[in-house]
Amino acid sequence: MGRTSDAKEKILSAAQSLIELRGYSALGVAEICKAAGVPKGSFYYFFESKEALALAVIDEHWAGQKQDWTGILNSDAQPLDRLRQLFEVTEAGQRAGQQSCGTVSGCLFGNLTLEMSNQTEAIRTRLQEIFDAQVEMVDSVITEALARDEVAVTDTREAARSVVAQLEGQVLFAKLYNNTHRLSPLWANCLALLGARVPQEALAGS
Amino acid sequence: MGRTSDAKEKILSAAQSLIELRGYSALGVAEICKAAGVPKGSFYYFFESKEALALAVIDEHWAGQKQDWTGILNSDAQPLDRLRQLFEVTEAGQRAGQQSCGTVSGCLFGNLTLEMSNQTEAIRTRLQEIFDAQVEMVDSVITEALARDEVAVTDTREAARSVVAQLEGQVLFAKLYNNTHRLSPLWANCLALLGARVPQEALAGS
Repeated sequence: MGRTSDAKEKILSAAQSLIELRGYSALGVAEICKAAGVPKGSFYYFFESKEALALAVIDEHWAGQKQDWTGILNSDAQPLDRLRQLFEVTEAGQRAGQQSCGTVSGCLFGNLTLEMSNQTEAIRTRLQEIFDAQVEMVDSVITEALARDEVAVTDTREAARSVVAQLEGQVLFAKLYNNTHRLSPLWANCLALLGARVPQEALAGS
Repeated sequence: MGRTSDAKEKILSAAQSLIELRGYSALGVAEICKAAGVPKGSFYYFFESKEALALAVIDEHWAGQKQDWTGILNSDAQPLDRLRQLFEVTEAGQRAGQQSCGTVSGCLFGNLTLEMSNQTEAIRTRLQEIFDAQVEMVDSVITEALARDEVAVTDTREAARSVVAQLEGQVLFAKLYNNTHRLSPLWANCLALLGARVPQEALAGS
């Protein structure tokens, strides 16, 4: 076993890869440790349970994604352009994942929501907090766009939820069909959901 | 063990309930047989593997849902009203599930897509066929609405995919927050995605 800090990172990294590939339930602690190249004893030194590991994987993944989302959604670009960039980065990320492991693995949070949220309250609560934060970030951008009279919504929170729901739904299809082009309509759909004041040809299905 | 036909139905019914509650990977054949009240030997009489059972559960669930969708989407009602009814029936179904088992279990096909589509090609293919069929049914209704000049899309297939993606995304949130009210915006969002020619107050976020 290397330095303890290495071992913890190795376990987290192996667990994230395995959870993305095969979900949470199918995994055992022994398999995670084998993939991480650490003895099983070190697992319980760092994590009191497999659930504690799942929460740590979620937190680490969100820390990285939150930084990406913040950089994009708080940039100096025009509000709607920031949303477009968010979809482009999402598509690029799924494409990179597909190239590295052969298959689109989808959204870790969406995957765990459908697999786990009914089974452990700790994971449900953590995933709720993350999606709440995502919706809040998108809401801020929509609110800015509304102040500029670029969109036509009366409830920015509800509109932000619909944009994130569309994102999760299209990522689900990208995973099912193992095809990242499924994410291409996100931008036009977002404009349609927001009643954006843009040319007709940018609307859904165009 | 009762009549063999009973045993098969009992296994299918128990497996569907357990998969909806806990996913596929977490289940073992012994647990399914125990819940069904049938001996393990009868499982392998009807199903050659757990995967074969999952495919049978998927097929049975789709047979019922397809009948519901066909009844709604092929009715004599106006095209957009049929889509509204589809969302209402979806919300009512999730509410009934929540009342019977205490938690929103979401869409069986969406759940299995995120949990399983990367792991078995047979399940991935079957789920693709089902979502293709759903999109095709919604596409037909959008095509009718377009002929009546009630919507503004140029690619009805892409628009249908976006409507079904929005449905899956909002069902994901209904499950995560254990709250079927999350499905209420589906109708307004559908109108927005289709560029429907309806009063502004019916659009997303209103």
